[in-house]
This record gives sequence, structure tokens and C-alpha cells, in this order.
Amino acid sequence: MVSQATAFAPASVGNVGVGFDLLGHAIDGPGDTVTARRVEQPGVRITAINGLVRDLPLDSERNTAGRAVIALLQDQQPGFGVELVIDKGIPLSSGLGGSAASAVAALVATNALLPEPLTHEALYPFALAGEAIASGAVHGDNVGPQLLGGLVLATTERLVRIPVPEALLAVVVHPDWQVETRRARESLVEPFDIATIVGQNSHLAQFLAGCYSGDIELIQAGLVDVLVEPRRAHLIPAFAEVKQAALAHGALGSSISGAGPSVFGWFRDPGQASQAAHAMQQAFATAGLEARSWTSPVNAPGARLVDVD
Amino acid sequence: MVSQATAFAPASVGNVGVGFDLLGHAIDGPGDTVTARRVEQPGVRITAINGLVRDLPLDSERNTAGRAVIALLQDQQPGFGVELVIDKGIPLSSGLGGSAASAVAALVATNALLPEPLTHEALYPFALAGEAIASGAVHGDNVGPQLLGGLVLATTERLVRIPVPEALLAVVVHPDWQVETRRARESLVEPFDIATIVGQNSHLAQFLAGCYSGDIELIQAGLVDVLVEPRRAHLIPAFAEVKQAALAHGALGSSISGAGPSVFGWFRDPGQASQAAHAMQQAFATAGLEARSWTSPVNAPGARLVDVD
Repeated sequence: MVSQATAFAPASVGNVGVGFDLLGHAIDGPGDTVTARRVEQPGVRITAINGLVRDLPLDSERNTAGRAVIALLQDQQPGFGVELVIDKGIPLSSGLGGSAASAVAALVATNALLPEPLTHEALYPFALAGEAIASGAVHGDNVGPQLLGGLVLATTERLVRIPVPEALLAVVVHPDWQVETRRARESLVEPFDIATIVGQNSHLAQFLAGCYSGDIELIQAGLVDVLVEPRRAHLIPAFAEVKQAALAHGALGSSISGAGPSVFGWFRDPGQASQAAHAMQQAFATAGLEARSWTSPVNAPGARLVDVD
Repeated sequence: MVSQATAFAPASVGNVGVGFDLLGHAIDGPGDTVTARRVEQPGVRITAINGLVRDLPLDSERNTAGRAVIALLQDQQPGFGVELVIDKGIPLSSGLGGSAASAVAALVATNALLPEPLTHEALYPFALAGEAIASGAVHGDNVGPQLLGGLVLATTERLVRIPVPEALLAVVVHPDWQVETRRARESLVEPFDIATIVGQNSHLAQFLAGCYSGDIELIQAGLVDVLVEPRRAHLIPAFAEVKQAALAHGALGSSISGAGPSVFGWFRDPGQASQAAHAMQQAFATAGLEARSWTSPVNAPGARLVDVD
């Protein structure tokens, strides 16, 4: 019987430009780590939050990890409670799915304590319940890929793993700047005309067709966000220059990760990806912002147990 | 040297519910037939329009078939002119791509007269040029599948054939009623909120993922139009009842074909498709409308030469 388990959940690129609230992919780089300990007292308590972000609510009902595990235990009724220790490796409000990763890591750790652990797919509704606390909306474009790895279509009902050519790389650059998720969402209140929608749908369809058929040219034609990026680009200093730096170094496409401020690009060539990462950081530097970058396969692994006692 | 060629282009289901202006599939049933005759005098003349629709412009610049062939000859400069005889097998303003089919049949027939005929895919820009005359907008969701057959993603730049499970059938029911394309387009002038767009994109993505992976459940989850159908349903008498008749007989989904008034449904089972076709016709009958129905594989063949001299 497992009494304690520790799980890691990776950061992720939300939206992936053309799949607002629907598409995301995992990143092999930063992530959140959560230890779940089985205790006799029912319910969920967060005993510590360590790492990059510490001023998060310890009240488990108001914490994404806590809320997700409450939903899981309410459903599974295992007859025990859980204490969580959260180690944040993803910066807050970075657009890298930090709140989602805490929920996913907490679920994967707690799941290992259950007499009959669920599949990662079956953990999805509980992860959504956690994520809803942070963003005020139910969307699985971060928890989906964090649970399954790779590129994932996350609808309100299900997760669909989308195949991508193995060699594809993502460069993700995170500047020292904060975009509030709620403010980013306000930029989308003004409605959209049908021409813009058809343009975006054309890109989404080409992107998915390209991923399924392994056609890089189609992925490139599709990886263009004409819906959300034009409304949010102004929230990120030097966004146009950072994107241009990615495209100038061979990016198939480049856009905002989640609600920003992180910016991502997809690449075929590791050398170009490395040059692009440097150029994108430099573009942020011209706006006075320090930035970190990660380079990862798009097919990066999802959440996993790292320790079980 | 070919002096005369006759080609048939099938009707098609435009939009396919979730792919407004982008997705369409061919129908094995009605179609337009065009004979192209090589003449010394340069340019394009339409010498006769026969069949179901006769009051179309004979002026080749104002006729979809004429305009498409003019565009082809301007590009190819073969040193001869063409006379066209058009036989309309698709009713006007039916939502079955009638104007597109005339353009496609005329192109495929004329193409056979060229010393080095083009691929059907290469005829796409000329078909778009023809279609633009009829609809006032450039969208390839009818000419695309009519050129290639099956289910096609038609962007402004390219055609992508989308695989679908072989067994899938479409039922298309055409009532004796006309919806003007321009009036249908006016219904889309009011802009759309982001929640509706995300809903539609989720369906589009599931639909495409289902087609590529052969997952019927995903196709069913995706074949729901929350963007355009709610704005246009009122233009078609008894639309809700006709759609309900399709769903009650096992349709994976049902929506408006093109701008209507034709209504289509997708089915797995031939018996259910046949019952649905009957029930859909009866639903139109309760609104006082006679209706014809066709049942066809979704993977229906595209345009082809039927006679060459």
C-alpha cells in the first residue's frame, strides 16, 4: 500500500496559436512537483508551497492542486485524506500552465495512493475542476498535454492526442513580465467577424491536417493565429520583434504561449532552434526584459511519478 | 489532338456543418455536364445551356463556367478558343454547389483539349475564379471536392483531401424552396463571441481528428455546427424537424448543405440512411414542401471526363 507519492508535471504551451483554449503541448523543461501523503483525517490539506512561487493560497479549496485532489477524492471515496507539499518550478502568470501543472502533479501523486489508480485520461475532469479555480474558466489546453504529453486537443469532454512529426522542436521564451490571465481574457470580449473566424478555422484545419499527415508545409501554413494574437500582442513588450526573431531563424510559426507573456516557436532544425532562442531573448532584452528560454521536443513527456513509498 | 470533350462534375455538400467556406464533400448523384469544343476563334463562348436551369447568363464573363475557362485559357495560352454547352443537372440555389459544378465540369472538359492537361488540383485557382462570379466571394468548399472527390479542405491557397472511413454515407435532401446565397451570407454580418468560436473550433478539431483517425465517435462529437446553423436555420422551412428526423434515424450529425435549403446527414448504416432519407422528406412535406433525396458515400468520386473526341 502506497503511503506517499511524488509526481512531476511539465509546463506546457497553451493554445498553440491556432487552438485557443483547445490545443496545448507539453514542454520538456520546467515543471511543478507535488508530494501527496496519505493521512487518516479525511479531506485535503496543503502543508507547504516551496519553489519559485510561494504566495499561493494554502486553503485547499482555493488552490488549484487542492481543489483538483478534493474533486478526485470526492469521486473515488478512498476512505483516507491527503496532505500535499507543492514545489513550484513554473513561474506564476508566465503562460506556461503553472497553475495547471500543480493540479496535474497533485492528481498524479494522489492517484498513486488509490487502491486502483485511474488512467491519466480519467484524471482529466478533476484537473479541469482544479484549473477552473485559477482561470475562472474551464479549459483543458494546459492540463490536457500535461496529463498525456505531446500535443493534445482538450475539449470539455475529452482529450485527444494529436500526432506530430517526431523531429519537431518548440522554443519557449519567458520574459520577466506578467500578463494577468483575466486581463488577457478581457481583450477577447469584443466579438469577431466571420472573415476572421474563417481565416482562423482555415489555419486550424491545415495545422491539424498537417500534424496527422506529417506534412510540415501544412503545419507551417496553419500555425498562424489571426484570432487571438492580434488582440493580445500589445500586452507583451516587444512581441512583434520576438516573433520576428523566431521566424527569421526558421520557425514554422510563432505566437503567444497561453495568455503570455511567454512566446513560442516550432522548428524542424535544432541549430535554427538554438539560434532562434538566443535571438528571441535578445529581442526581449531590447525592451529591457530579461528572458529565459527552453528548447523541447513538441512530443515532450507528460506528468509522471518520480517517487513512491 | 482532342477536338471536343465532355465532363461531368458532381454536386457537393458545402461547409459540412463545421467547416464554413472550407470543407465540402462530393455527392454520387446529380451533377452538371459540360462539353467543350475547340474552335479557331480565341476566347470562350457559351452556345447553349440545357437541363434543369436555363436562365443563366450566356455571356461567358458573367457565367461561372465561362469565367473559369477564360481564366484557364488566359493562363495556358493554348492558341485556340472554346465553345461550351452546359447541361445543368443541379437545381439553382439548392445548396448543392450547382454554380461550382458548371465551372468544374467546364474546366475538366477544356483541360482535355490542352496539349498538356493539368492535374485537377492545378485547376483549382481557375475554378475559384469562376465560383467568385456566382457567390461574390472566393471560397472553394464546393469546387474543391468536385475537383478531387471525397471530403476536401479548401483553403484560399490549396486543396487537402481529408480521409474518411469508407463506409460513411451522406443523405442529402433538397426541398422545393430557394435560399438566396446573398441573403444567407447577410445572416452572418453580426459578429460572433469568443465562446461560440471556441465551441465551433472544438467541433471542427474533433471532426478532423475523427476523420484522420477513423474514430466515428469523434466525428459524431464534432459534426455539430454552433456557428452558422443557428443564424440560418430560420431561412429553411421545417429545418429543425428535418434535422431531428435525421438524428432520430442514427445520423452522426445533420446540418445545412452550403447556404441551404438542402439538408444533409452522415450515417454509418445503409438501412438507417434509407429510413432517414424518407423521414427527412416527410418532415419537409409537413411544411408543404416537396423534396428529393440522394444517398451517397461521403467518399464520392469527383469530376471526370465522360466523352472525348
